[in-house]
Amino acid sequence: MVFGPPDTGRPPRVAVLGAGAIGIYYGSRLALAGADVHFLARADYETARRAGYLLKMTDGERRLEPAQVYRSTEEIGPCDLVVIACKVTANDSIQERIPPLLGEGTALLALQNGMGSADCFSAAFPDHPVLQGLCFICLNRTAPAVVENSYPGYIVIGEAAGGRSALGSATVAWLERAGVNPKHAESLDDALWRKLCWNVPFNGLAIALGGVTTEAIMASPDRRAIARGLMAELQAAAAACGHVIPDAFLDKMMENTAKMGAYKPSSMIDFLEGRVVEVEAIWGEPLRRGRKAGVAMPRLELLHAVIAAVAGGVS
Amino acid sequence: MVFGPPDTGRPPRVAVLGAGAIGIYYGSRLALAGADVHFLARADYETARRAGYLLKMTDGERRLEPAQVYRSTEEIGPCDLVVIACKVTANDSIQERIPPLLGEGTALLALQNGMGSADCFSAAFPDHPVLQGLCFICLNRTAPAVVENSYPGYIVIGEAAGGRSALGSATVAWLERAGVNPKHAESLDDALWRKLCWNVPFNGLAIALGGVTTEAIMASPDRRAIARGLMAELQAAAAACGHVIPDAFLDKMMENTAKMGAYKPSSMIDFLEGRVVEVEAIWGEPLRRGRKAGVAMPRLELLHAVIAAVAGGVS
Repeated sequence: MVFGPPDTGRPPRVAVLGAGAIGIYYGSRLALAGADVHFLARADYETARRAGYLLKMTDGERRLEPAQVYRSTEEIGPCDLVVIACKVTANDSIQERIPPLLGEGTALLALQNGMGSADCFSAAFPDHPVLQGLCFICLNRTAPAVVENSYPGYIVIGEAAGGRSALGSATVAWLERAGVNPKHAESLDDALWRKLCWNVPFNGLAIALGGVTTEAIMASPDRRAIARGLMAELQAAAAACGHVIPDAFLDKMMENTAKMGAYKPSSMIDFLEGRVVEVEAIWGEPLRRGRKAGVAMPRLELLHAVIAAVAGGVS
Repeated sequence: MVFGPPDTGRPPRVAVLGAGAIGIYYGSRLALAGADVHFLARADYETARRAGYLLKMTDGERRLEPAQVYRSTEEIGPCDLVVIACKVTANDSIQERIPPLLGEGTALLALQNGMGSADCFSAAFPDHPVLQGLCFICLNRTAPAVVENSYPGYIVIGEAAGGRSALGSATVAWLERAGVNPKHAESLDDALWRKLCWNVPFNGLAIALGGVTTEAIMASPDRRAIARGLMAELQAAAAACGHVIPDAFLDKMMENTAKMGAYKPSSMIDFLEGRVVEVEAIWGEPLRRGRKAGVAMPRLELLHAVIAAVAGGVS
């Protein structure tokens, strides 16, 4: 059931699990680009069945109608590509629903932030190629079956096996046709470490300081120094794991953050609204990897403990 | 107006500012021992005027009646010893009320936790000797003019000028007669660093982790390691400031904490009840001193930022 890039044969049969903002947006854009997309829906099922999905984008609205929505993965059946768009904290329960979607060569694509997703699905489904997509985008589900995209951004696709396979390239080509600006990373881990260099300090401090914006972090020299210190710990851990991140990359990140204004990191919004925060994928896993590689991460140890306690349901 | 130890002349004339649990307890015990103690009272004024102060102690109750209570320091007039028992966060406003209490040689004794109190009063009143008392005790004001003492503990008296003066010794002798188990420290700063080795990690983590007890900190190896790491940073800062704290002292502190059960540090109770926490005296000042001495304190930097944000009214 291996699929190729657009215009080389039949379009890929795609299942989307976890039809929140991420799943609805990327699934609908793939469908609008010609892929055969099947959504596993929960809360939005009735609305999506009746009226499809509505995407409100910076350059206008597009509606996917009809949308192929389902209540179970058994109804969907085997696919070429399984897009997993739930939170990492739901991975255990989503795994149980994946087997009916699998055929020979079915690939898994986790659209999830943080470390460990690809490992988790590779371990659960060792016969299937696993990809992970890091979404640099701003999406909000503003009503049932309606997603607003206020910052188009891009998506970095990396492969659990490392490198760039034909399957990975075909997936990237479909995302390219879908207009979501994909980049194909040579190393998933390298991309993950780089993304965490921002998420760890800024999502982290936004929560630990009681729910503040990036502006409130950047406005204080002490807080800026702490954010930069956390980046340096991640840089050291990444280096010990074989991924070199130059100082200039981190300095540029700090500069860009200073220009972002009063941005609310997604985990901070989740925290303030009482939703589960992906503590282990963002703070726990890099800490464990850094530690295993013998790197001292005193700031991350403390930040992880604080986030786990106040936002992770650990008492 | 210099006073001597008990039985050497007239008893000292003492003013107590900030008649909360600490002020009521130590002031009443000094009065019961024969000192001439004058309380500046606010909330408890009427009750204290009518019925004095009641101390409920582990070995029985004692009442100071009548208690000499006042609404202003002008009514009290010059004293030998001014006991300052407010929170450090009230130091600015309490300072303005001190001048009417001062005569030649009047000493100030700040019964306050944390670093910077003695410096603050020495700077404000350079002609007067300043002492600081670190109270290792468990006190609660359980009703107006009633204080319960569930753990008698001890009090460490140190002198802003360093060393042990005759005046410091006379004060300690009166506290000895008052039965509050004083110890006269050779070095105030040494005593402060040692006390902060406990307060910084345990009061700090109890707050930063969202309001947990010492038991919840000691129950997790990761959290224990963070607490011990914070102690090590303070130890390094103290050493750079000329105060050697042996590892064995810190290890013993960890051991003792493990035996304390579900203890709630006082700052954590203040935090949970929405009262002001003494952020700078406990976390800010040692950080500044350590930094100035060139010591890296990555854990304390982060912890201070978190506490200041969630408990210190900094946004």
